[in-house]
Amino acid sequence: MAEKGVKVFGMWASPMAIRVEWALRLKGVEYEYVDEDLANKSEALLRYNPATKKVPVLVHDGKPLAESTVIVEYIDQAWNDGYPIMPADPFDRAQARFLARFAEDKCNAALFAIFVATGEAQRKAVHEAQQCLKTLETALEGKRFFGGDAFGYVDVIVGWIAYWLPIIEEVSGVTVVTDEALPLMNAWFGRVVDVDVVKATLPPRDKLVALNKARREQFLSAAA
Amino acid sequence: MAEKGVKVFGMWASPMAIRVEWALRLKGVEYEYVDEDLANKSEALLRYNPATKKVPVLVHDGKPLAESTVIVEYIDQAWNDGYPIMPADPFDRAQARFLARFAEDKCNAALFAIFVATGEAQRKAVHEAQQCLKTLETALEGKRFFGGDAFGYVDVIVGWIAYWLPIIEEVSGVTVVTDEALPLMNAWFGRVVDVDVVKATLPPRDKLVALNKARREQFLSAAA
Repeated sequence: MAEKGVKVFGMWASPMAIRVEWALRLKGVEYEYVDEDLANKSEALLRYNPATKKVPVLVHDGKPLAESTVIVEYIDQAWNDGYPIMPADPFDRAQARFLARFAEDKCNAALFAIFVATGEAQRKAVHEAQQCLKTLETALEGKRFFGGDAFGYVDVIVGWIAYWLPIIEEVSGVTVVTDEALPLMNAWFGRVVDVDVVKATLPPRDKLVALNKARREQFLSAAA
Repeated sequence: MAEKGVKVFGMWASPMAIRVEWALRLKGVEYEYVDEDLANKSEALLRYNPATKKVPVLVHDGKPLAESTVIVEYIDQAWNDGYPIMPADPFDRAQARFLARFAEDKCNAALFAIFVATGEAQRKAVHEAQQCLKTLETALEGKRFFGGDAFGYVDVIVGWIAYWLPIIEEVSGVTVVTDEALPLMNAWFGRVVDVDVVKATLPPRDKLVALNKARREQFLSAAA
C-alpha cells in the first residue's frame, strides 16, 4: 500500500530543491522534508529517481517525481484550487515556461561559469550573465513580479537568483547586478527575499557562503 | 492589427522544428511554413525570438512563441478539443514532462557528442547514449508509444531520434541502437516513422545525410 502524504527530498543549499518547498508553501500543503547528503545519497532517493539521482524529488501519496520545474508545475495542477502559480491563459502559461526554460538553459550556465572561473573567462561569463538577466528583465517591465502582482511560476523558478547571486558575487569577487545595469532585476531581488514562503525557507547566508567558498576552491584547484 | 492564422518558422533539417509541425498536424491545424536560412536569419525570426534567435518559432494570430517543447504544449492547450497530445492526468503529464526533459538534457547531449567525436571520446559517447536511451526505454514497456496506444507528447519530443539517429550512426560510423541492446526502442523507431504526420514531414534522407556529413567534417576539422 502506497504511503499517504507529501515528502520532499532536498539538500539545504540547493537552489533547485527550494523551489519545491516554495510551491508547496504557496499552496499551503503540509510536507515532510528529507535532507540528502549528496556525497552519500539515500537508498530512497536512488529508488525514487533512478534516471538522474538528483534532488529535488517529490513523493505524493507514494508516487515520485523529479526535476524541479516539472514538480512545481505538477504541484500547481494537483492542488489546482489553491494559490495559482501558473498563469491561467494558455499563451501566458507558454511564455512563462519559455522564460523559465531560458533562465535554466542560458542564465544558469553563465552564473555557474562565473563561479568556476577567474580572469578573462570570468569577465566573459559576467558579461554573458548580465546579457541573460537583461533579457529576463524585459519581462519585469511595469510589474512587481514576473507573475504580475503576485509571485508566480517564473518567480518560483528564477527566484533563487535573488538570494544566491549576491553570494556568488561575494565568493567569486565580481559584481553582476547593479541598479545601473539591471534596475528592475535589482528591485525584484528585494521583493523576492521579502515573500513569506521565501523568507521562511532560505538557508543561513553564512553557511551558504562558507560552503560555496569551499566549492569554488575545489573547482579552481581541479582546473589548475 | 495582428495578423490571423498560424505560421511556423523552421529549418528543413532541424529535428526540433519538425516537432511543431507534428503537433499542428495531429490537431489538424492549417499553418504556413517559413524555412529559415540559419546563416542569414530573417528579420522576422530575429524580431519574433530576440532571446535565443533560434527556430522553431510559432506565430499564432500575431503572437510569437519559441522553444519547441513549450510550443508543442501550447498547441495542445490552445486547440484543446482536438487530438490529445499531453496525458489528461496531472501526474502522468508531469511524468511525460520529466521524460521529455531528461531526453532533451541528457540524451541529446550524448547523441551530439557521438556526432562531433572520434576514437575513445566517441566510444564513451555511444555508451552514454545507450544508457540514456535505456532509461527512456523503460517507459515503453508494454506500450506501442510513450503515449500508450497513441503517439503523444513524449513521442513528439523524442520521435526525431527514430529518423535522425540512424543517420547519425551512418555519418559517424557507429552503432547505437540494436535489437539486442534496445529492443523496445528499436521497435518504437519503426512505429514512429510510420505515423502519418511523421511520414508527411520527414526531410529526404539523402539530403540529411549529405548535410550532416558536411557538418561533422566541419566540427572535426575545427577541433583538430
